[in-house]
Parts: sequence; structure tokens; C-alpha cells
Amino acid sequence: MRTLIVIGTGLIGGSFALAAKKAHLVETVIGLDDDENTLIEAKKLGVIDEIGGPALRPDLVCVAIPTNGIADAVTAAHAQYGPDVPIFDTGSVKVPVIEAFDSVPANFVPCHPIAGSDLQGPAAADADLFQDCSVVVTPLEHTNTSAVAVIEKAWSGIGARVIRQPPDQHDNDMATVSHLPHLVGFALVDLLANGATSLSDLIGGGFRDITRIAGSDPTIWRHILTDNAGRVREKMDELIRILETIQNAAQYDPDELQRILTRISDYRKRLDG
Amino acid sequence: MRTLIVIGTGLIGGSFALAAKKAHLVETVIGLDDDENTLIEAKKLGVIDEIGGPALRPDLVCVAIPTNGIADAVTAAHAQYGPDVPIFDTGSVKVPVIEAFDSVPANFVPCHPIAGSDLQGPAAADADLFQDCSVVVTPLEHTNTSAVAVIEKAWSGIGARVIRQPPDQHDNDMATVSHLPHLVGFALVDLLANGATSLSDLIGGGFRDITRIAGSDPTIWRHILTDNAGRVREKMDELIRILETIQNAAQYDPDELQRILTRISDYRKRLDG
Repeated sequence: MRTLIVIGTGLIGGSFALAAKKAHLVETVIGLDDDENTLIEAKKLGVIDEIGGPALRPDLVCVAIPTNGIADAVTAAHAQYGPDVPIFDTGSVKVPVIEAFDSVPANFVPCHPIAGSDLQGPAAADADLFQDCSVVVTPLEHTNTSAVAVIEKAWSGIGARVIRQPPDQHDNDMATVSHLPHLVGFALVDLLANGATSLSDLIGGGFRDITRIAGSDPTIWRHILTDNAGRVREKMDELIRILETIQNAAQYDPDELQRILTRISDYRKRLDG
Repeated sequence: MRTLIVIGTGLIGGSFALAAKKAHLVETVIGLDDDENTLIEAKKLGVIDEIGGPALRPDLVCVAIPTNGIADAVTAAHAQYGPDVPIFDTGSVKVPVIEAFDSVPANFVPCHPIAGSDLQGPAAADADLFQDCSVVVTPLEHTNTSAVAVIEKAWSGIGARVIRQPPDQHDNDMATVSHLPHLVGFALVDLLANGATSLSDLIGGGFRDITRIAGSDPTIWRHILTDNAGRVREKMDELIRILETIQNAAQYDPDELQRILTRISDYRKRLDG
């Protein structure tokens, strides 16, 4: 491939651009972004080679923008570059992105790289962001298999592990492992902010760890939490039931509490091992 | 000071021992522990110099054991070493520790170093664990001021910042910044464990961050969550109200969601800055 177009040159798009260049998957990266400052910064930092003009002939298009704009951007790219150029997105939800299309182009491959940072913008872009990370690819029945092959090869080429899932399973799993944890991180920080006294001197590493994600980009998370609200609500209700169970054990049955915490602690350790 | 006795030679007691030696606050550290293997390991690793015998004359006593045993250990140490030897504990709750005494000795200074690790035992002991960490000291009205002075000087001497609080304020604040976050971390991991499919491939850094504390020692947390259950219950109910507020905004009022997340994200960033 010669030319990659990245629509949205922030953390994720910028990191894909740097990684694709580093792995020699593409020769030239052209950037497009609604925010002109982001684009200028991306060019200045060498995250992209050129700022996009009207007559482009890309070999691959990466759409790395907030989820609510993806369908429009993909539809426009499809119209402009034709049905033979593979297009993928990087949105953290898949069903709402797919449902936002009038018709989903066969050359569009929905993707979600499970990587991120509480940093934002092209200055945070990192050629190694996707190294060893998982990328969920959720092709539809009519998705072009050669487009899927090109895009999965690109992700593998920059060191990511490709996982295929149906879109609804992806959104359900993400509610558990990402969206609800973010909601909880935001809520814990809000609880702290409501405190009458300044508690910041008392904060240990545990609180910092558990709330680091509450520093994430509010605009991105506004869209994710809105898009996947139904599934997050289900998981939140389940979490509240678990909180009640553990807390009741703490109040009324310490031995049961010990059994619960031991089981969870063992499970958590296996996640790292 | 010449001799420090550390009762409980695990992560916290072992780290205090190493730090006190490193800062030349004491010449000899004598260890005591109910668990003989821990004691032998601590001696082998050089965390302590000697294993305690019956006729000891310490200058300072550190009680670093689970909260339910602190009152008995302090009372025994007070009886054995006399009223002139300052004794402190390192328990994560203060009111229940104080209430467990028949009478609180005037040479006992309740302390809580806000430091920890999901690692345990003397092998995890670290001379720099308390460097730049906060230590809450909660003396009672009748606590001996010279004992407080000795112990605050020792904490400062190993690089910690001393904060004084009444015991009930400490326990209330800790429910917010530590105990509830741990409860939530445990609950989020349990939610994941309940998932029908293996989700571990989908876990990103955010989930690992927010649930790292769920790998903490179940026995220590059984006691903390039991001891401070009333205050944790209040904070948990408040957290659930906040979760409902944010989730309702995600479902019914995206602009309000954006305002909430922006406010929280700004607050979280200030905590680091």
C-alpha cells in the first residue's frame, strides 16, 4: 500500500498513522480533521505527512473520530474514494455505529482497538500504542472479505492481536470491561469532589489507579456512554447487586465476606498471570 | 533510639523496619510475628535483624498486624515494655481499633500510613514505601505528647508527611478514598468473573487499573471492610445515587452528561497536578 488517509488525527488515528509508517505498511499518511489546529499540530509533529486536499487516491482509510460522526464520515469516504478502498473505524461501540448508516458499505470494516490513554491529541500519538493490544473486528454478513483481510493484516502488521466478534457481543462485553468501569471511575471521583474537606492528601495509589480513567476525554465518553447506555444500565444494575452482596457480608457475615474476597482476589490474580 | 520492635513483619511492618534502618533512626530491628514462616523469611531477607525473645528493651514498638489483633498486641506490649516506650500501629481504620481497648494506653499513638501494595509479606517490604506518602496520626486527648512527638518524628525521618486527624474523621475520609474504591474494585472483578464468555482478551489498561486493588490481601480487606462497614455503607449508597445520576443523563440528557463528565474530568486532573 502506498497511501493511508487518517480521518481524525488525535491519539488513536495519530498512533495508527505512526505505527503503519513504522511497520512500513504505507509510504504516505494524509490527515483530515475537523479541527484545523489538531491537523496542523499532527503535521508539525510528523504524525502525518500531508494535510488532505480534494483529489486523493488512498489505499486504506482509517476513521478515528467520535462515534456519532463515524457513519457520515465513512459514507462520505466511500462516495469519494470508491468501493474498492477498505475503510475501517476505531469506535468503542459497534452496534450504534452500524445502525447509524442508511446502508453500510461492503468495504467498511468496523474495528475497535482496545487501547487508549487519558492523554489526548496528536501529541499523545504513539507508534507502539497498539503493540500487543487486542483489536476486535466485527464484520457484517455482507462485508467484503478482501477488505476484512487487508485491515486485519494491517492490525497484525502493527503488532495487534485480532479478535473477531459479532457487533452486539462486542458491545455487551465492552459494557462490562470498559464502559461500566469508566462510569464507576467518574462516579468515585464525583463522590470525592462532593466531600466537605480536602481529601487529596489522603489519596493513595489505589484511588489514583481506580480513578485514572476519570481523566479521560469527556466528549469521547459522552458518546460512548450514550451509545451503549442500554447495555451499561444492565451491567450497572448487576454491579449494584454485587456491591450490596459484598457490603451485606461485611455487615452481617464476615466469614462469607472472606470467602467472596478470596474468590475475587484469586480470579483477579489469574487475569495478570 | 537503639532498638525497634516490629510486631507483624509483613509488607508494612517490614517496610517500616527497612526504612528506619536506612534512615539510621534505629540500630537494631527485632521482629515478632504469629506466623513463624513470615518471621524466618523476614530474618533471611534482612528485613529484621533478630527474631524476638522474651527479655527485650525496645525504644519504639511498631504494631503492623490486621486491625482485629491490634488492641491485644498493644496492651500486651504496654504491659511488657512499660509506659515509657512509644507504641504505634499502622491499621487502616482507627475508631474500631481504639474501641477494642479496655483502656487505651497513653503511650499508644494510632497511625495509618497511606501506602500499600497488592503484594504481601516480607519479600515485598521496601525501604522507600513510605517516601512522600501521607501518614495520618490520630492521637486521643490523653495520649502522651512526647510519645506522639517521637512517632511523628520517626515517620518524618523516613520521608512521610504527617497529617493529624480525629479518628472518626480519618475513618470517614478513608471510606471515601480507599475502602469504597476497594469494594468497587472487588465488585467489578466479580462482575467480570460472572460473564459467560472469557473476557480476559478484551481487557484494556483501564480495567486493569481500576481493578488492580481487587488483588489485595482478602484477610486484610475482610477486616477493614467489616470494621468500617457503617461508614462504607453510607458512601456506597451515595456512590449508587451518583451512578444513577450519570447513567440517567447518558440515557435521557446527553448534554447534561457532557457537563457532568467535564466537571469530573477537570477535578480528576487537578488531583494529579
